[in-house]
Amino acid sequence: MPDTSLLESFPTPSDTPFVIEHTSEEFTSVCPVTGHPDFGEVTLIFEPRTNKAGGTCVELKSLKLYLQSFRNEGIYYEAVTNSIRDDLAKLMEPTWMVVRTDWKGRGGIKSTIRATVGDVPGMWLR
Amino acid sequence: MPDTSLLESFPTPSDTPFVIEHTSEEFTSVCPVTGHPDFGEVTLIFEPRTNKAGGTCVELKSLKLYLQSFRNEGIYYEAVTNSIRDDLAKLMEPTWMVVRTDWKGRGGIKSTIRATVGDVPGMWLR
Amino acid sequence: MPDTSLLESFPTPSDTPFVIEHTSEEFTSVCPVTGHPDFGEVTLIFEPRTNKAGGTCVELKSLKLYLQSFRNEGIYYEAVTNSIRDDLAKLMEPTWMVVRTDWKGRGGIKSTIRATVGDVPGMWLR
Amino acid sequence: MPDTSLLESFPTPSDTPFVIEHTSEEFTSVCPVTGHPDFGEVTLIFEPRTNKAGGTCVELKSLKLYLQSFRNEGIYYEAVTNSIRDDLAKLMEPTWMVVRTDWKGRGGIKSTIRATVGDVPGMWLR
Amino acid sequence: MPDTSLLESFPTPSDTPFVIEHTSEEFTSVCPVTGHPDFGEVTLIFEPRTNKAGGTCVELKSLKLYLQSFRNEGIYYEAVTNSIRDDLAKLMEPTWMVVRTDWKGRGGIKSTIRATVGDVPGMWLR
Amino acid sequence: MPDTSLLESFPTPSDTPFVIEHTSEEFTSVCPVTGHPDFGEVTLIFEPRTNKAGGTCVELKSLKLYLQSFRNEGIYYEAVTNSIRDDLAKLMEPTWMVVRTDWKGRGGIKSTIRATVGDVPGMWLR
Amino acid sequence: MPDTSLLESFPTPSDTPFVIEHTSEEFTSVCPVTGHPDFGEVTLIFEPRTNKAGGTCVELKSLKLYLQSFRNEGIYYEAVTNSIRDDLAKLMEPTWMVVRTDWKGRGGIKSTIRATVGDVPGMWLR
Amino acid sequence: MPDTSLLESFPTPSDTPFVIEHTSEEFTSVCPVTGHPDFGEVTLIFEPRTNKAGGTCVELKSLKLYLQSFRNEGIYYEAVTNSIRDDLAKLMEPTWMVVRTDWKGRGGIKSTIRATVGDVPGMWLR
Amino acid sequence: MPDTSLLESFPTPSDTPFVIEHTSEEFTSVCPVTGHPDFGEVTLIFEPRTNKAGGTCVELKSLKLYLQSFRNEGIYYEAVTNSIRDDLAKLMEPTWMVVRTDWKGRGGIKSTIRATVGDVPGMWLR
Amino acid sequence: MPDTSLLESFPTPSDTPFVIEHTSEEFTSVCPVTGHPDFGEVTLIFEPRTNKAGGTCVELKSLKLYLQSFRNEGIYYEAVTNSIRDDLAKLMEPTWMVVRTDWKGRGGIKSTIRATVGDVPGMWLR
Repeated sequence: MPDTSLLESFPTPSDTPFVIEHTSEEFTSVCPVTGHPDFGEVTLIFEPRTNKAGGTCVELKSLKLYLQSFRNEGIYYEAVTNSIRDDLAKLMEPTWMVVRTDWKGRGGIKSTIRATVGDVPGMWLR
Repeated sequence: MPDTSLLESFPTPSDTPFVIEHTSEEFTSVCPVTGHPDFGEVTLIFEPRTNKAGGTCVELKSLKLYLQSFRNEGIYYEAVTNSIRDDLAKLMEPTWMVVRTDWKGRGGIKSTIRATVGDVPGMWLR
Repeated sequence: MPDTSLLESFPTPSDTPFVIEHTSEEFTSVCPVTGHPDFGEVTLIFEPRTNKAGGTCVELKSLKLYLQSFRNEGIYYEAVTNSIRDDLAKLMEPTWMVVRTDWKGRGGIKSTIRATVGDVPGMWLR
Repeated sequence: MPDTSLLESFPTPSDTPFVIEHTSEEFTSVCPVTGHPDFGEVTLIFEPRTNKAGGTCVELKSLKLYLQSFRNEGIYYEAVTNSIRDDLAKLMEPTWMVVRTDWKGRGGIKSTIRATVGDVPGMWLR
Repeated sequence: MPDTSLLESFPTPSDTPFVIEHTSEEFTSVCPVTGHPDFGEVTLIFEPRTNKAGGTCVELKSLKLYLQSFRNEGIYYEAVTNSIRDDLAKLMEPTWMVVRTDWKGRGGIKSTIRATVGDVPGMWLR
Repeated sequence: MPDTSLLESFPTPSDTPFVIEHTSEEFTSVCPVTGHPDFGEVTLIFEPRTNKAGGTCVELKSLKLYLQSFRNEGIYYEAVTNSIRDDLAKLMEPTWMVVRTDWKGRGGIKSTIRATVGDVPGMWLR
Repeated sequence: MPDTSLLESFPTPSDTPFVIEHTSEEFTSVCPVTGHPDFGEVTLIFEPRTNKAGGTCVELKSLKLYLQSFRNEGIYYEAVTNSIRDDLAKLMEPTWMVVRTDWKGRGGIKSTIRATVGDVPGMWLR
Repeated sequence: MPDTSLLESFPTPSDTPFVIEHTSEEFTSVCPVTGHPDFGEVTLIFEPRTNKAGGTCVELKSLKLYLQSFRNEGIYYEAVTNSIRDDLAKLMEPTWMVVRTDWKGRGGIKSTIRATVGDVPGMWLR
Repeated sequence: MPDTSLLESFPTPSDTPFVIEHTSEEFTSVCPVTGHPDFGEVTLIFEPRTNKAGGTCVELKSLKLYLQSFRNEGIYYEAVTNSIRDDLAKLMEPTWMVVRTDWKGRGGIKSTIRATVGDVPGMWLR
Repeated sequence: MPDTSLLESFPTPSDTPFVIEHTSEEFTSVCPVTGHPDFGEVTLIFEPRTNKAGGTCVELKSLKLYLQSFRNEGIYYEAVTNSIRDDLAKLMEPTWMVVRTDWKGRGGIKSTIRATVGDVPGMWLR
């Protein structure tokens, strides 16, 4: 199972709202039906709660290790996206967050899945 | 005729709304007037109903086979787009859906057709 | 003169609103002042009225022939754009339409002209 | 000084609102501090007043000559942008206009300046 | 410490609102944990207060020197972004401002941080 | 079977050697093992024999119809490439020819096959 | 007929060999079979004979007018290319020359034709 | 260990020399020092021996499975490249072959490794 | 006249041959016929003579000032290219040198001129 | 001074010649005249001597640290390139090597410097 114990966070360094975007171009998991590897890209866009509201931000190296823990997991595109959304929402309780996964395709069909937390302003839903 | 019996779906894996986008870069059908092949790209963007609302998502391999069933069909651009929209709307009854077809062009004119179901948020109409 | 008698239309194949976009990358007319040829691209984006409302769509080959009839016409960028808008609006009476012409440039200046019919949703004004 | 006497206009050829965009990729002026040349791109986007409202459009060759008159002018990025805006606003009194200048950069910093006239719809502020 | 004494400004050259965008493609600082250099791009987008409101604009060469003063500073992505935002907000008190930093990535993850001042119109939050 | 009777040629219009390159971006055949469609691009580069040597060039429309005749043929990448090479070599007996097929990929692997006739100068082997 | 009387030349301005390349992105002629317009790009690459050898170079504006004279000519791709090669070879008698025409395509097939004069070094045959 | 038993071949379908190029965009292995995953692209270019010389070609699906067998292997860039070269050379004994691996980079450094078999013509060493 | 007194050089810092390439994207001069400005890019590629052979390299800032001295010069493309070649050849007496100028185009025709000194290896003639 | 003690190597893992290419996109040093930072990209392409010939390859992390040691060094483009060439040639004594540095430009002029060791095959001099 993806290992949420790898995730760490640090206090938001500001009381003014701001937006963080992380993109991992090197994501891989395994198709639960065929056993073949899937390759994709994972993007997080979120507004952390402010420092005085007790907000936290995911630590970058821990995020990398957490994403690597999907490497040999048999799991569908939709479940990868929803798992990452749920695990990071639990960790940070952000004001809002978008998790987008872009998959290189199987059988000539490329897929993109987007899952959200909170009230995401429209311009971030891309 | 395009074969809707090929389409399969699975229950939406989440009760939080999310957005799915599938793009097939390898679509072909036949022009009903000239008999020459048409080549294009088919993109679906939709928000499935949630799991607790009984929502379903189209299964990826079945989508591929369904799209392949247009291969030797004599059918206009507009009709391809509306057929796919109608067949997938019937299968999934999504909250909203956009079907976009991008055609490589005939006689120096490229075409893009977009058909929708439900109340599509503006940022997805691209 | 551009020959509107070349334009043909067919009944809209659906009662659900949808959007059609045609792009001709091979448009040429003649500058009425210098007599030199102008080269550009013509894009139409429109929502036809529905079938039950008596809506029609421009036929693709007739559109090509109509656009070719500008080939030796001495006419300004703005007039090309407004003529195409007027002729197609008369033919189809669409719910809304955008006509955009993108010109390769004269004297180091590229130009784009956009003319509209009806109440065009903002996301199509690009 | 940039020579506004070079600017000419012609009556708007339509009573239906439309949008004109001109881009000159070959603009140069001189930095007033260092005396080194600056290179950039100038883009105008505007909606002329209609014909019946007495609207006019800038003539393309006169625009080219006017922009060339900045060639040996010592002038800041911001002043170039505001001058062009003021001169063209006075010439045409458009419904709205955006003047955007994109500069190739000095000291590793690229700059873009946008100045406006009237109530510019959001989608043109790009 | 980044050296705010390097920053200089000049009076806004206009009483009509306009928008300034500066992009430095050559930014580097040092990771406070590993000591390895970070490389990125810094973009400012802001509307200065008008001249009659006492508005000022950051001077371009001083901005370059200020950004260079981060060169050997051990500092996190988020702190870089918030520092630049705070220092320039104090210097200019703009109507609104966006500071965006795009980082080349560590461990396969690229990051973008956006911090804002004032009420930023949505189209500038990109 | 691909239908070579569709191929037509016309006499080379010159006695000076020259080089012809045709690229069809819309090629499709069927995988003989899985029955799934393959999509690719076919490029011919050849030097026809001169007119006085009795040389001929493939006629463009006949080439299109010939390539379309592979549409429902179950055939491997290598065989497609060698068939086209053999059929066109027989038709034209060119001084030299390269046939290159670029395939969109199966199972994450894209393929390019090149087959030749005669002594192809190195710069055309791309 | 293409009008060679439009072509003018001037004496080569150097006794050291050099290479000239001109690309016209705005070429159009007419298909002699269908009567539909063809659109393409014409590129010349040549080494003029030196001044002391009596060499000449084609004048740029005369080249433009000459290329425009093909506008309403019914003529095949190969013939366009060979005509331009012959006319310019006669005008300049260059040390060597390549004429390349790149056509936008008919029926999904793009074509490139190359004709040469003299002994063209391999690196220019692209 | 990478599993060479997965590799299968089929007889070369031609007696005329030709060139095959396969590119897998989805390769991953593990760094033997840090344990972190590496991501790259593997390209093979080879000329199989002819049919009458007993030549064979690697079967595409078996190649995919073989490349997947590196997924959890701790192995350096250079060793990956040399292993693939050795395994495929043993399988096919091609006339010549290039194996190129392009790696996404570690610590800001991207790497490309090329290993060869036989006498590779220069134009394929890219 | 372009001012060769602005050019400075420094001794080649090595006795091992190496290759230097400088590209100025911001070159402008004036057409001697029309008086309109021309815009282009100037590229130098050269191998300086070695230090022990008394070789020198052009100093970068002096090159910039020299190229700026063409700003208001009425001069043809070919003459610009040959002048730069002659002036730099006299300054440095390099082992070999290529001067390439790429012009943005007049009347829809882009031009590239290449002039050389010495025996230029083929791979640099691009 | 750049610190060559940071460089480490390992024995070439093969007796068959192969080619290694490393590209660091994140290089920075300081201009010795102005004190401003320079930013560039460093590419090495080399053929190590074989294992049985006692050949070695530079270790990737040590290369990164070595390149970082130029960070606050006041040094010219040409000297950077020649230093890296000399230091790596001494470390590995490769069969041949190319060191290429691509600089982001100063005063509108981009530069590329190439230095070599041994007899570099032409196709690698790019």
